[in-house]
Amino acid sequence: MDMKSSPCAALRIDGARLWQSLMELARIGATAKGGVCRIALTDLDRQGRDLFVHWAKEAGCSIRIDAIGNIFARRAGQDESLPPVMTGSHIDTQPTGGKFDGNYGVLAGLEVLRTLNVAGVRTRAPIEVAVWTNEEGSRFVPVMMGSGVFAGAFTLEHALAQCDAQGVSVGEALRAIGYAGPAGPAPAVGAYFEAHIEQGPVLENHGRVIGVVTAALGQRWYDVTVQGMEAHAGPTPMELRRDALLAASELVLQVNRIAVERRPHARSTVGTMELFPNSRNVIPGRVRFSVDLRAPDDEQLLDMDQALRAACARVAGERGLAIDVEQVVYFPPQPFTPQLVQAVRANADDLGYSSMDVVSGAGHDAVYVARVAPAAMIFVPCDDGISHNEIENAEPEHLEAGCNVLLRAMLAAAEVVA
Amino acid sequence: MDMKSSPCAALRIDGARLWQSLMELARIGATAKGGVCRIALTDLDRQGRDLFVHWAKEAGCSIRIDAIGNIFARRAGQDESLPPVMTGSHIDTQPTGGKFDGNYGVLAGLEVLRTLNVAGVRTRAPIEVAVWTNEEGSRFVPVMMGSGVFAGAFTLEHALAQCDAQGVSVGEALRAIGYAGPAGPAPAVGAYFEAHIEQGPVLENHGRVIGVVTAALGQRWYDVTVQGMEAHAGPTPMELRRDALLAASELVLQVNRIAVERRPHARSTVGTMELFPNSRNVIPGRVRFSVDLRAPDDEQLLDMDQALRAACARVAGERGLAIDVEQVVYFPPQPFTPQLVQAVRANADDLGYSSMDVVSGAGHDAVYVARVAPAAMIFVPCDDGISHNEIENAEPEHLEAGCNVLLRAMLAAAEVVA
Repeated sequence: MDMKSSPCAALRIDGARLWQSLMELARIGATAKGGVCRIALTDLDRQGRDLFVHWAKEAGCSIRIDAIGNIFARRAGQDESLPPVMTGSHIDTQPTGGKFDGNYGVLAGLEVLRTLNVAGVRTRAPIEVAVWTNEEGSRFVPVMMGSGVFAGAFTLEHALAQCDAQGVSVGEALRAIGYAGPAGPAPAVGAYFEAHIEQGPVLENHGRVIGVVTAALGQRWYDVTVQGMEAHAGPTPMELRRDALLAASELVLQVNRIAVERRPHARSTVGTMELFPNSRNVIPGRVRFSVDLRAPDDEQLLDMDQALRAACARVAGERGLAIDVEQVVYFPPQPFTPQLVQAVRANADDLGYSSMDVVSGAGHDAVYVARVAPAAMIFVPCDDGISHNEIENAEPEHLEAGCNVLLRAMLAAAEVVA
Repeated sequence: MDMKSSPCAALRIDGARLWQSLMELARIGATAKGGVCRIALTDLDRQGRDLFVHWAKEAGCSIRIDAIGNIFARRAGQDESLPPVMTGSHIDTQPTGGKFDGNYGVLAGLEVLRTLNVAGVRTRAPIEVAVWTNEEGSRFVPVMMGSGVFAGAFTLEHALAQCDAQGVSVGEALRAIGYAGPAGPAPAVGAYFEAHIEQGPVLENHGRVIGVVTAALGQRWYDVTVQGMEAHAGPTPMELRRDALLAASELVLQVNRIAVERRPHARSTVGTMELFPNSRNVIPGRVRFSVDLRAPDDEQLLDMDQALRAACARVAGERGLAIDVEQVVYFPPQPFTPQLVQAVRANADDLGYSSMDVVSGAGHDAVYVARVAPAAMIFVPCDDGISHNEIENAEPEHLEAGCNVLLRAMLAAAEVVA
């Protein structure tokens, strides 16, 4: 795992070339505000895919497309019977997305290939760069569709049958852009690494360049409905009210406390709220809000689930209201593979980059791939932690650093042939 | 004021006749769920007005229409130079309104006239029953439009120029239904009484039949905007958040406390709330909500205003957020005339009805009329305090009791001629 003694210890990626490729890909679907709108399985997505395939072929790779449209660019290894060491991410974006989310992970992989080519490095295991289909889920759900099918999180048939708002299915859209490959079992993967912008503020806040991602948080999402009694704001004295918003507000504070008491990794958020009838001079009779709980392990997540239910029951009892809690989403926590995580950590140290262990609060393709292969992630900072936004930005030297760590971690896993 | 020694001490209104008229008027705009939809200045409003005018003429009244469409049905007094003793309310309803809000006050006035006719009672001062235009404000704002113009709260020209969602002006709508009368100064009123369902739960909760309304609460309405920082719910640790909903929720609880600490008459309500971007997995960056503060006197209302502003400033400072407070509505508190209030109280006692002093939390035509004439209100219970709802209901014996109190209070003010 340690590269110090490797013949490739001095090998570095070309940060300028990486940046140039990022900027060139960002022209496809470029928005006026400097972002990118390249929705999954649209013609712009096809143009982005075609450009990647062109670059990968230029780098001497063979191309394989699977039935959900995932692209795998393969650089042959000395021993082609070995499972590949893989990296990748996605190039579809949010409707008002940025240049780096996903795209960085794909082009960092391409930059690794190019660097190996220039240096004439051969590896024992083959190396592959994956472009996963529809990570964002803006047009088709479920999100992380390509990696989800690959990892068996849901079936190919289920994914292909999903339709967008216009009634176009994933299967039709794949055929329309020419990226519907043959069906077949997902091949084994020797190790999977994914480089990604952090999409949060932790690295920037701590002044670190490399985030060593130890795990992805598990998630439980809920719909909570508070049923009180609608009444006129004027004629109804305070002591005769059953105000659904008062109960909901108390619960928002309680929900927040659930994660604050379980720092640093737990998260809890109320992101949506609707009042009925939502009129200035009417006491809210009903309030509906979402709860999003996240934790690094299932025990803690279940503990948070119980804290939420207990808070709702207590507030309902104290205020004489009915409160209904319905879980609507569950993603299990996903630890990454300790050996690969350690490779990321050690190589960051070795390269002299400041680093820290972090958890991934958001979903990524790597989280699904980790179900079927050893996997790890490398985070780099993004400005102000902002992502899914046209102003999303990252520093070239951070992207370069993350890519150098990726290069070394992949070489260690694939083994350099002298 | 005391009717015990009056020749009319034994006079009672006819509760069955009052109920029958209420049910007959309720047929105009009747809804499937048992309510009434008779929006101001529509053809249904015209039909309701026509029925009232028909009944009033049948009762021997002369009819006067003013320029904002208020109807005054007049029963001549012995001394026609005296200002009339007036009662009334409105017959326009909310889109999903009930049978009693407003309609009760108008038909109680008609029932007083009929009772006097049957008994052959003459009064020194003339008696008038007013039907005020557009009290509800469902189609045209401002609310309480007819009584507002009458009392000089805003000008006739301003009211006539207001348009509904289809661009039809009040002036056009009045002409279309044939209720645009001549302009002219509002005549003097000797005393004004308005009977109304309580639209709140206090009388029912205390088991009382008559609410002696001492004052109408003053109102201050606000828009409060909390500006935090929108961020992803997953990657953003709790300590790096500036969650606008957390601050808003704390303020909802504070707003509630402002009135709870100033019971029994103060009221405070957050009725509307909007989150931006209102997405499950995004920390709310901005939250906007309404605040409605009410109090029986200006000193207390101003004290509540200061408490609201202090709470917003404190929460903004503690949480590092910007909070903007904008007052959007001010209605001054309106005490009713002590002599007339005492007449309501004494006559309720004299008739053996249980009563209690209450404040009006809502606006009523009487609140405007009280600016230009001695005025008082009589409340009767409504089922579960529910109003502005198709299931709005009131007990016939309560409506009868309120009307008997109205009869006596009006006779005392108008003076029975032997």
